[in-house]
Amino acid sequence: MRIVHNPDHHRHDARHEMYRGRLVPCHETPDRLAFVLEALRQRPVGVLSGPEPVSDAELRAVHAPRYLDFLAGAWEAWVALDPANAALDILPSVWPVRGFRHDVEPLNFAARLGLYSFDAGSPMVAGTWAAARAGAACAVTAARAVLSGEGSALALTRPPGHHAGPDFFGGYCFLNNAALAAQTLRDGGAARVAVLDVDYHHGNGTQTIFYARDDVLTVSLHGDPMTEYPFFLGHADERGEGAGLGWNLNLPLPRGTSAATWFDTLDHAAQAVERCQPDALVVALGVDTFEGDPISGFHLRSADYLRLGERLARLGLPTVFTMEGGYAVAEVGVHVVNVLEGFEARAR
Amino acid sequence: MRIVHNPDHHRHDARHEMYRGRLVPCHETPDRLAFVLEALRQRPVGVLSGPEPVSDAELRAVHAPRYLDFLAGAWEAWVALDPANAALDILPSVWPVRGFRHDVEPLNFAARLGLYSFDAGSPMVAGTWAAARAGAACAVTAARAVLSGEGSALALTRPPGHHAGPDFFGGYCFLNNAALAAQTLRDGGAARVAVLDVDYHHGNGTQTIFYARDDVLTVSLHGDPMTEYPFFLGHADERGEGAGLGWNLNLPLPRGTSAATWFDTLDHAAQAVERCQPDALVVALGVDTFEGDPISGFHLRSADYLRLGERLARLGLPTVFTMEGGYAVAEVGVHVVNVLEGFEARAR
Repeated sequence: MRIVHNPDHHRHDARHEMYRGRLVPCHETPDRLAFVLEALRQRPVGVLSGPEPVSDAELRAVHAPRYLDFLAGAWEAWVALDPANAALDILPSVWPVRGFRHDVEPLNFAARLGLYSFDAGSPMVAGTWAAARAGAACAVTAARAVLSGEGSALALTRPPGHHAGPDFFGGYCFLNNAALAAQTLRDGGAARVAVLDVDYHHGNGTQTIFYARDDVLTVSLHGDPMTEYPFFLGHADERGEGAGLGWNLNLPLPRGTSAATWFDTLDHAAQAVERCQPDALVVALGVDTFEGDPISGFHLRSADYLRLGERLARLGLPTVFTMEGGYAVAEVGVHVVNVLEGFEARAR
Repeated sequence: MRIVHNPDHHRHDARHEMYRGRLVPCHETPDRLAFVLEALRQRPVGVLSGPEPVSDAELRAVHAPRYLDFLAGAWEAWVALDPANAALDILPSVWPVRGFRHDVEPLNFAARLGLYSFDAGSPMVAGTWAAARAGAACAVTAARAVLSGEGSALALTRPPGHHAGPDFFGGYCFLNNAALAAQTLRDGGAARVAVLDVDYHHGNGTQTIFYARDDVLTVSLHGDPMTEYPFFLGHADERGEGAGLGWNLNLPLPRGTSAATWFDTLDHAAQAVERCQPDALVVALGVDTFEGDPISGFHLRSADYLRLGERLARLGLPTVFTMEGGYAVAEVGVHVVNVLEGFEARAR
C-alpha cells in the first residue's frame, strides 16, 4: 500500500473552536497524525511518500473557484484588517441561511468568511491553506498511484475533508479530499467510482458535490443527523437528484449503535457498492466510530478496525483511503493502521 | 405620544457575542434603555405605560410556530443538557446554509439552535424569551394605541427586532417588533401599512417577512451590505416577489455617508412611503447612524435626530416607532428623545 503523507499538516494548528456554546480547545489536532505515523513505524503496512503537486484545475473540478480564491487569501485578508489579528484564529460569525442571498459576494471579510462556511467550529490559522492544499495533493497523489496500478493507497492527511462542500468549509474540513480522489480516478479513466464514508459523521460535503451525478456513487453510514453533527443532511430519504437519483445512499444509525449492528450496516453499504460495479473505491476513513471517541457515539473497539479493513478488501477494488475524523487522539494511530493491516492481509 | 416601556427588557442581559472572530462584551445592553428612560425623565415627550398582553396568535401572524416554540423552551432545554450550562449564555455554532435541509427539525439542541439563527453574535440567556415576548407586547400595544386614535406611539424595548425573520434570530433580534406592529395595524383595519427602517443596518427580517405581500411596504436605508452587516440582504435590486413585487425598497449607502446625503436619501424613502398612500407608518428606529456609534459608519450628529423626527412627522401618518439599534450607549437616550421631540413638535 502506498501511504502519501502530508508534510504540511502541522501548519493547520488552531487553538479554539466554538462547541455547544463555548470556546473549547480544538478536537482536530496535529497530534492525530503523529500517532498514526508512530503506529506505522511500529507496523509498516505501506510505503510512505510525500505528495506530488496538485493543480488549480484539479481543485476546481470539485470546488468553486471563488471559494478557492477565498481560502487561499483568507489569512492575508484577516491580518490586513488589523495586525493584531495575527495572534487570533479566524472564526466566522454570520451566515446566509434561508432567505438570504448567495449570489453576491460581499467585500467585507467577515461576510465572505460566513458565505463560505457553515459552522463556527472550524478555525483557520496562518497555515491552514498550505496544509489543506498539501492534503488535497496527497489525495490526488494517492488516486494517481492507484490509477498507476497500486492496489491501494492512503492519503494520510489532515485537516479532514468530507464535510467540505463545493463552496463551503465546516466540520474541521476545507478541501474535500475524498471527492478530489474520486474525481482524479474518474479523470484517470475509471468509468464509475464509489465513495464509501465510514466516519461517525455524515459526509455531507461529498454527498453535495456528487448529488446530481451518475458517475460517482456516494454511500455513508453515520450517526443519525436528527441528533448528530452535521444535523442538516444525512437522512435516509436523500437519494440523489436529477441524473444522480439513486446515486446516494445514507445509512443513519442511532447514537449508541453496537459494533454488531454497525458491521451489519457496513455489509449493506458494501452491497450497494458492489451493485454499482465501480472501477475504483474511495473510503472516507474516520475512526471516530470508536467507543472512546469524545464527540461521537458508536461502540467499535480497537480490534474491530482490523475487521473493517478486511471487509473493505473483500470488495476487491482499487482503493484510495482518505483520513477523516477520529478524536480519541492517542488511539487514532492504532485504529487507522488496524484498518490498513486488515485490508492488506485480506487483499494479499 | 404614547410610550410603551418593556418592564422585562433587563432580563435579556448576555455577556459575550462572537464579533469578527473573537468573543467580546455584548454591544446590545440593558443600559441602552436606561439612558432613554433618563432622557425621557428630563424631557417628557410622551406618556409612559407598560404593555398589554400579546397572544400566541398575534406572534404567529409574523413568526413560524416551531420557531416560537423553540425560543420559548430554549433556556430550559439548554440547562437540561447540563446543569453547568446555567452559567453560560447560549450561542449557536452550526447553520444550514445552501445545500442543507431546513424541512426536518433535528432533535439535538445545538442543531435546533442553528436551524433558527443566522449568526453567532446573538446570545440567549435565561430571561431572553421573557424580555423578547414582553417587547413584542410593547410593539403590539403601541400599534393598538395608534389604532385607538393616538397619533403616535413608541415601543420602547429591547432586544431589538428588525433582523429577526419568520423563523430565525440574529443581529441581537429575536421577535420582529416592527413587523408585529405592522401586522397589528393591518389586522386592526389599516388597508396598507408602510415600514420605514432608519437603522444603520438593513432590516432583513422585516423585508423577508413581508417580501411577497402587497399590503405592507418595506423601505430601508442602511449601510451597503457589500461591506456592512447583515451582508447577505439589503441590495437595491431586491424589490419584492410575487404579489409583493415593487413593495420593497432598499436604499443602501456607503460606509462614511454624510448627514446631508443621508437626509436626501431619507427624502427619497419618504416619497416612496407617500406614493404607497398607507394608512399607517411603522418606523424601525435605530440611532446607530450616529457618528460616534462603535459598530456603524454614518455621520449623523445629535441635532440631526430632531430633524429626522420632523421629517417623519411631515408624512402626516399615524406612526408606531419601534426601538432598534444604537450602540453609542450613553448617547442613545438623547437621540431617541430628539427624534420623538422633533416628531411631536412638527406633528402638533
